[in-house]
Amino acid sequence: MSRTVYVNGEYLPEADAKISIFDRGFLMADGVYEVTSVLDGKLLDFAGHSKRLARSLGELDMALPIEMDDLLEVHRELVRLNDINEGMIYLQVTRGAPSDRDFAFPDPDETPSTIVLFTQNKPGLADTPVAKKGIKVISIEDIRWGRRDIKTIQLLYPSMGKMMAKKAGVDDAWMVEDGMVTEGTSNNAYIVKNGKIITRHLGTEILAGITRNAVLRFAEEAQMTVEERSFTIAEAQDADEAFVTSASTFVMPVVEIDGAQVGAGVPGPVAVRLREIYLEESRKAAI
Amino acid sequence: MSRTVYVNGEYLPEADAKISIFDRGFLMADGVYEVTSVLDGKLLDFAGHSKRLARSLGELDMALPIEMDDLLEVHRELVRLNDINEGMIYLQVTRGAPSDRDFAFPDPDETPSTIVLFTQNKPGLADTPVAKKGIKVISIEDIRWGRRDIKTIQLLYPSMGKMMAKKAGVDDAWMVEDGMVTEGTSNNAYIVKNGKIITRHLGTEILAGITRNAVLRFAEEAQMTVEERSFTIAEAQDADEAFVTSASTFVMPVVEIDGAQVGAGVPGPVAVRLREIYLEESRKAAI
Repeated sequence: MSRTVYVNGEYLPEADAKISIFDRGFLMADGVYEVTSVLDGKLLDFAGHSKRLARSLGELDMALPIEMDDLLEVHRELVRLNDINEGMIYLQVTRGAPSDRDFAFPDPDETPSTIVLFTQNKPGLADTPVAKKGIKVISIEDIRWGRRDIKTIQLLYPSMGKMMAKKAGVDDAWMVEDGMVTEGTSNNAYIVKNGKIITRHLGTEILAGITRNAVLRFAEEAQMTVEERSFTIAEAQDADEAFVTSASTFVMPVVEIDGAQVGAGVPGPVAVRLREIYLEESRKAAI
Repeated sequence: MSRTVYVNGEYLPEADAKISIFDRGFLMADGVYEVTSVLDGKLLDFAGHSKRLARSLGELDMALPIEMDDLLEVHRELVRLNDINEGMIYLQVTRGAPSDRDFAFPDPDETPSTIVLFTQNKPGLADTPVAKKGIKVISIEDIRWGRRDIKTIQLLYPSMGKMMAKKAGVDDAWMVEDGMVTEGTSNNAYIVKNGKIITRHLGTEILAGITRNAVLRFAEEAQMTVEERSFTIAEAQDADEAFVTSASTFVMPVVEIDGAQVGAGVPGPVAVRLREIYLEESRKAAI
């Protein structure tokens, strides 16, 4: 079944969803994005994603070409039109398509931002068997730009990282800078040691994950200890558990890092419990 | 007059030149580009640009969806169709538009690369009055990713750099990493001290400019001394001359760096001479 997608105010069959070759998203990676998960046909933490979207746009002096309330309605309409029960909604805003290519930003009054949304139908997303087995990761050098706190579409290196992982026969890669883990290719990284949950502190080096924020809140509400600091691959390999969080994988156990088994080599109790709490609380709060 | 552009084998009016929203160039900056200048209706150093294009593609395991000989003909046809005497031809290749967004690269047999070319008409490009006056630059921190030797479309930070320069009332920015100048936002950076031309050595930190290569060759042929090593902003401010090179600005004198006048504050003799030689030799070799 062909999807119905949203491009600059119009709902279109995906085959007709096109943008100008002069779009700055296409020519210079001048855009930001968000991915919101859908469970039971409802949006998970839309408020969190829209707040981060506004921040990303603000950091880049880019305008949102739609009211935030209307954006919520577009999300809901896409869920309805594409009959999504479990899956994701991808949203991208770029600095639009000026009449010619130029490094300087176009005048926003003459060149409105481009906005694109589409759905990804993922039946069984919450109950994926992968979460029962856990994933394996390798570590790679983090060579991305310095403003990873802005959710830009500069995803070439994370893509390359996924391919390096694939080539190594594993599922994902953790990126390392100055000897310390920054984050996964599209998720935040955590370890658990002696009951303590450790994840890198926020900064320009990593994205402030919406799921990270929720999971840390739920962990504290459940009386778990959280420490926000960076850690090494060696420390992670020596941890009791490891896991990642992202909007579309929720809480995902990591059972192997660079060939070394983490803990018992199976999903640990903290990760399993946090996944349960996250899914339960997110479903309750979904809109 | 509307341009005729080239998209995946077709010559189209620019208003009809569109690509899928699923194109990886649009969604994840998964693409590379080249800009070839045109003087007297002929292409400057097409061989150099096509060689670098092949290298960029190779580094990213991306395929060129056209034979190199045919690519030359597309360039020439665009020059003809758009009646370009002086200007540029922009070329971009992306990893194509798979049926859905995914970090992993699509199978190239199922998803052909996307190729886009368009012209930019710039009458007076070679004889621009800017070259007689020189440009002013500021220095900014270089926070780009680590593989700047690949000419990817991840140009958000260079764009931001141009805007920082604009805001500071100058023309461009030189990027600085670990205290040393890497390059300009879209050009290679040089200084001249006691008759010696100094420009950063090649590596993953900078792009191997096609114009840089030609200019260094011409400089050596003209018995000028060239030293390839990194330098600081302080050293540049204290130099006798400074300049930048790029495919579309050729050799462009820099007369002010971070508010400090370079040399006499006017284009220096080495830069002026190199610009003359470059234009003369390039015109002769143009095809």
